[in-house]
Amino acid sequence: MTQIFNFSAGPAVLPKEVLAQARDEMMDWHGAGMSVMEMSHRGKEFMSIAAEAEADLRELMSIPSNYKVLFLQGGAHSQFSMVPMNLLRGKKSADYLDSGIWSKKAIDEAARYCQVNIAGSSKDKNYTYAPSQVALKLNKDAAYFHFTSNETIGGVEIFDVPKTGDVPVVCDMSSHILSRPMDVSQYGVIYAGAQKNIGPAGLTIVIVREDLIGETIAGTPTMFDYKIHADNESMYNTPATYGIYMAGLVFKWLKAKGGLAAMEKINIEKSSLLYDYLDASDFYHSPIAVENRSRMNIPFTLKDAALDESFLKQAQQNGLLQLKGHKLVGGMRASIYNAMPIEGVKALIEFMQSFAKANA
Amino acid sequence: MTQIFNFSAGPAVLPKEVLAQARDEMMDWHGAGMSVMEMSHRGKEFMSIAAEAEADLRELMSIPSNYKVLFLQGGAHSQFSMVPMNLLRGKKSADYLDSGIWSKKAIDEAARYCQVNIAGSSKDKNYTYAPSQVALKLNKDAAYFHFTSNETIGGVEIFDVPKTGDVPVVCDMSSHILSRPMDVSQYGVIYAGAQKNIGPAGLTIVIVREDLIGETIAGTPTMFDYKIHADNESMYNTPATYGIYMAGLVFKWLKAKGGLAAMEKINIEKSSLLYDYLDASDFYHSPIAVENRSRMNIPFTLKDAALDESFLKQAQQNGLLQLKGHKLVGGMRASIYNAMPIEGVKALIEFMQSFAKANA
Repeated sequence: MTQIFNFSAGPAVLPKEVLAQARDEMMDWHGAGMSVMEMSHRGKEFMSIAAEAEADLRELMSIPSNYKVLFLQGGAHSQFSMVPMNLLRGKKSADYLDSGIWSKKAIDEAARYCQVNIAGSSKDKNYTYAPSQVALKLNKDAAYFHFTSNETIGGVEIFDVPKTGDVPVVCDMSSHILSRPMDVSQYGVIYAGAQKNIGPAGLTIVIVREDLIGETIAGTPTMFDYKIHADNESMYNTPATYGIYMAGLVFKWLKAKGGLAAMEKINIEKSSLLYDYLDASDFYHSPIAVENRSRMNIPFTLKDAALDESFLKQAQQNGLLQLKGHKLVGGMRASIYNAMPIEGVKALIEFMQSFAKANA
Repeated sequence: MTQIFNFSAGPAVLPKEVLAQARDEMMDWHGAGMSVMEMSHRGKEFMSIAAEAEADLRELMSIPSNYKVLFLQGGAHSQFSMVPMNLLRGKKSADYLDSGIWSKKAIDEAARYCQVNIAGSSKDKNYTYAPSQVALKLNKDAAYFHFTSNETIGGVEIFDVPKTGDVPVVCDMSSHILSRPMDVSQYGVIYAGAQKNIGPAGLTIVIVREDLIGETIAGTPTMFDYKIHADNESMYNTPATYGIYMAGLVFKWLKAKGGLAAMEKINIEKSSLLYDYLDASDFYHSPIAVENRSRMNIPFTLKDAALDESFLKQAQQNGLLQLKGHKLVGGMRASIYNAMPIEGVKALIEFMQSFAKANA
């Protein structure tokens, strides 16, 4: 069988070693006589799994002790409401950076709860770059500043945390969390759906500074209150136990790989291979400004869109899956998360070369 | 190794055959070259998994075509808010049956959004029976009537759907859905967390009559709007894909067992074995009214609570796990969901007999 490489934007490729361990432990976790899926979330076995997952994530990201780590459900979409519901704290407005489709979703939901100030936008160039720090129109009375540090669909990554003074920074890191070291202390809230760089869909990680927890707007569902989950160590209700277990295995895998600094080196190497090839090619094109090119999600176009379908079909025949770009931007997209081996990127480039040659 | 039987109230035992299939398919689902966890939720492989899971659930429960089946996240706790947020539809109050700890949680959350009328309560006898149909004080202007058809902690099951005229019936079936046939057409909304009789924690199933969908109260988060999920076939955001896959395997397992009528027979047999033993014993006691005894969650006490700890310890040594009753009611609790084989119930009774003899 052809070796398969899965370039899906999410749910996405997971480390083979992690999947193999999950398979081996499926029927009996560490002699407990049961699957992790069958464990009471309040039993000592699962409590140890959850505690270890949190400890490993804290170590990987160097999360300061005044931050809570929450293992929630509902994805980034739920955070789009939870953020204003928890962070407005009596204020009337929030600043949002408009850098693409995902930030737009966050903006639309927040606008239902407060006045949203667009602190900067790259809409003028179809979201192919990130509004720079210089251009930001910040609002001193904003309850918080929100940005999407990696636009999964657009392929735009923001490498510097915007400076906002005393206004807490909130960040949707869904599609590049754990891809490189991030200085957590620069953020008020970090959130991420698991299904790209962490584990299976259905788990959402929220990292929140303690002083921002505790005041919600009227009508906030109890399940949308950070304080409820923080006070109950993410066990107010039954959490996505298997997702936490899988995330824990991924955290161990990352530690074994050398942690986030090591991952960053690998991710620079992998993404550079592909960007260098795109830039050298007349056949393919990356539309993204060089300084904002995502190391995780790499959209590109063919010189003739009429060839798209045949590109995708032949790619699939060569074991290169899920390369179709999002319908809102078209073209192709290669998502090369932590778990994508460099061999996958090399195989993709090799195929792209031969396809370009055959269709020159 | 001793055979293990897991009596956890949830997350709970899953069918061994289902876990074995999940293990075998972990690295490569049906030749797709990837794990189900790695599949895009919008790819044809996962779409087929989700469609088949829904079709099988519809078949098992004979769900009429004017009901939507939603695969959501957030557990019953999220439904406690979603139900009033979606079902009040301009009305000011809702009727709730107060039959135990879980119905109380639903009541407390609903009271944040509307006036809650307690249509009946069994608090007078410490929730050891279900308020009968005769005793219900129904309110004609209620937006809906809510009850918890199986109290997981109390062990109280309601076998007849309360008659409420034109007022839609909303039911939390988390801990006994799929344990017997239910006439879905008698309900407006049925909801259930998956982690008892369906699959892994993190998946929530909502079955909702179409005419009840579409009007939410102001401030409802988009993710709490049934219409959003119904219109997008549970793919508005990334659903708990692996949970849906596992639930689908459980549905197939139930169909192979003969469906819900066959399961009911088995569940009557299993639960009768234990209740008959409890009733015949002077050493153990079931506090629950005979007509409301749950077939899924069976709490019982020892004649001397000082023996509880030694009972639990010896049970564990005999491979009988998670028998401790909920801290709010004390004593023991054996949860014997669909996936608990009759051998587990027999092993439990055998152990109980020998423990009673040794401590007579």
